[in-house]
Amino acid sequence: MSTLNRQWILAARPQELVTPDVLKQTESAVLPLTDGEALARVKYFSIDPTMRAWMADVPQYMPPVQLGEVMRSFGLAEVIESRRSDFKKGDKIMGLTGLQEYVVLSENHPASFQKLPSIPFLSDTHFLGTLGVNGLTAYFGLLEVGKPQSGETLVVSAAAGATGSIVGQIGKINGCRVIGIAGSNEKCQWIKNELGFDVAINYKQPDWKQQLVAATPKGVDINFENVGGEIMEAVLDRMNFHGRVILCGLISGYTHQDPALSSFIRILIKRLHVEGFIILDYVFRFMDAGKQLGMWKMTGKIKDRQTIVRGFEKAPEAINMLFHGDNIGKLIVEL
Amino acid sequence: MSTLNRQWILAARPQELVTPDVLKQTESAVLPLTDGEALARVKYFSIDPTMRAWMADVPQYMPPVQLGEVMRSFGLAEVIESRRSDFKKGDKIMGLTGLQEYVVLSENHPASFQKLPSIPFLSDTHFLGTLGVNGLTAYFGLLEVGKPQSGETLVVSAAAGATGSIVGQIGKINGCRVIGIAGSNEKCQWIKNELGFDVAINYKQPDWKQQLVAATPKGVDINFENVGGEIMEAVLDRMNFHGRVILCGLISGYTHQDPALSSFIRILIKRLHVEGFIILDYVFRFMDAGKQLGMWKMTGKIKDRQTIVRGFEKAPEAINMLFHGDNIGKLIVEL
Repeated sequence: MSTLNRQWILAARPQELVTPDVLKQTESAVLPLTDGEALARVKYFSIDPTMRAWMADVPQYMPPVQLGEVMRSFGLAEVIESRRSDFKKGDKIMGLTGLQEYVVLSENHPASFQKLPSIPFLSDTHFLGTLGVNGLTAYFGLLEVGKPQSGETLVVSAAAGATGSIVGQIGKINGCRVIGIAGSNEKCQWIKNELGFDVAINYKQPDWKQQLVAATPKGVDINFENVGGEIMEAVLDRMNFHGRVILCGLISGYTHQDPALSSFIRILIKRLHVEGFIILDYVFRFMDAGKQLGMWKMTGKIKDRQTIVRGFEKAPEAINMLFHGDNIGKLIVEL
Repeated sequence: MSTLNRQWILAARPQELVTPDVLKQTESAVLPLTDGEALARVKYFSIDPTMRAWMADVPQYMPPVQLGEVMRSFGLAEVIESRRSDFKKGDKIMGLTGLQEYVVLSENHPASFQKLPSIPFLSDTHFLGTLGVNGLTAYFGLLEVGKPQSGETLVVSAAAGATGSIVGQIGKINGCRVIGIAGSNEKCQWIKNELGFDVAINYKQPDWKQQLVAATPKGVDINFENVGGEIMEAVLDRMNFHGRVILCGLISGYTHQDPALSSFIRILIKRLHVEGFIILDYVFRFMDAGKQLGMWKMTGKIKDRQTIVRGFEKAPEAINMLFHGDNIGKLIVEL
């Protein structure tokens, strides 16, 4: 008698939330193992916002789940039968198990699953959170991209979530003033009283933006962004010049279309580096650059063109020419 | 008899373009110089998109021009009278002259004006463009932020403008494949045939996005963005993973409110560094980070919490819990 594997299949792409037509339960027989395969029973599913993104048929950092496929997820499983030399019965593994009861671990996809180390006093499920994807995301995102310095101000959104709660604590370890934004008083109490955040702000309170201003008297140096939208914009308003934004999640835009987020979703999934640029920051190096530009100009490596408008009184309409696209090259008014 | 100085005063903040009520002409008497001042006659106004931003009463990288003040602009002027030791009659200077016929150069603001060097074969007006703010912006923006490598693909928007046209040529000097986006066939012919861009795309042609795809078979590594909006989004769609975006201008949003640009305007004026982050990029360093996280967890420097939902059949509703904010810490389904 073959074992039946209950699975959640992606049956339809969601409009907003996961409605009953989106994920359908099905059963399939577990096939006999061939050499190079092991069979594991799934014990825990990790539930992550990125799953909602995987359901959508849009470009993203991994291929979207196809209709009819088992829904992708991280999970923990225990090997119950093995024809692989590297996995034996009883081994605990983590990886992309998917939302199903049994998963076949094939040697052809060696990177997909890792054995759990056995660490005293730590339950296995920590490898889904603090010691897993969330902890690693917090660790590398904050330390490698955010580069926190002691005394800097860090704001974390979705601060009581699996990633945000670790981000804030790593910020404290690195000497930052840490402000967390979360959606309930219970969450705020947890991150402030138990996790040691300096300030916790409940964005469902009407005056939360004023609270954010009051909590950031020296502005914000680092924003670890998990949410997007109105929350991100309020934090951007508090950012100091040359601040760093780690764009890690945009959960406010995962269940509905937000045109203001479409560019940010592209920045996130492509891991783009976007930097605002104002020439004033380079004033002290103008002389050297000017020499190089002059050399290129004199030797014909750079050509240019001027659109010259004559007369003091033409200045206002000259400004409008820029927005009508009426100039080629440099636009100048000659008095 | 005192000299009269014609001036363009900011009389009202513009709604969209510069209408006749926005800039008003006025005349004021030039006062006798005091020690430490020089008087210069303005010969050229530089006309730049940033002037439209300076007219708006919103936070920006310089204070907005106040109502009743002379409209701010760059310009070239010639000293006609001096009571400063560093400027003498006949000196040519550049700086923030403003839209007026005469400007007083005070020693109290020493950084505001610079003497023009005299370079053979170069007309003075080049110090407003190629050898001035535009050339310097192109130079530092592309080289310092974009860090172009030979063989990379660079896309420049507003490519026939004073800055964009130099950006593309510096890209060519650095061995990039350069695609320029501009708004007329004449502009496209200029940047392609005279400036040496590899491809010029007229975004007013209906198939311009297909042209962009065809012109970027290896994707886009660097986007020098001057425009924003639909043009930026089309370029972001072609960006390679870990590409760089130099956010230098957002001219599509200067004359009207575009909610999709409000966050980008903040990024630009504050020179923020925004980076998309996906943990997959750090897979090869998971082991070391995991050890550190484990140590923090074991020693109580990091605390966590789990929200555990029991039952295979609960997976779909657990996903929705994320978007309702129903979990604190890590959300897990236990089978």
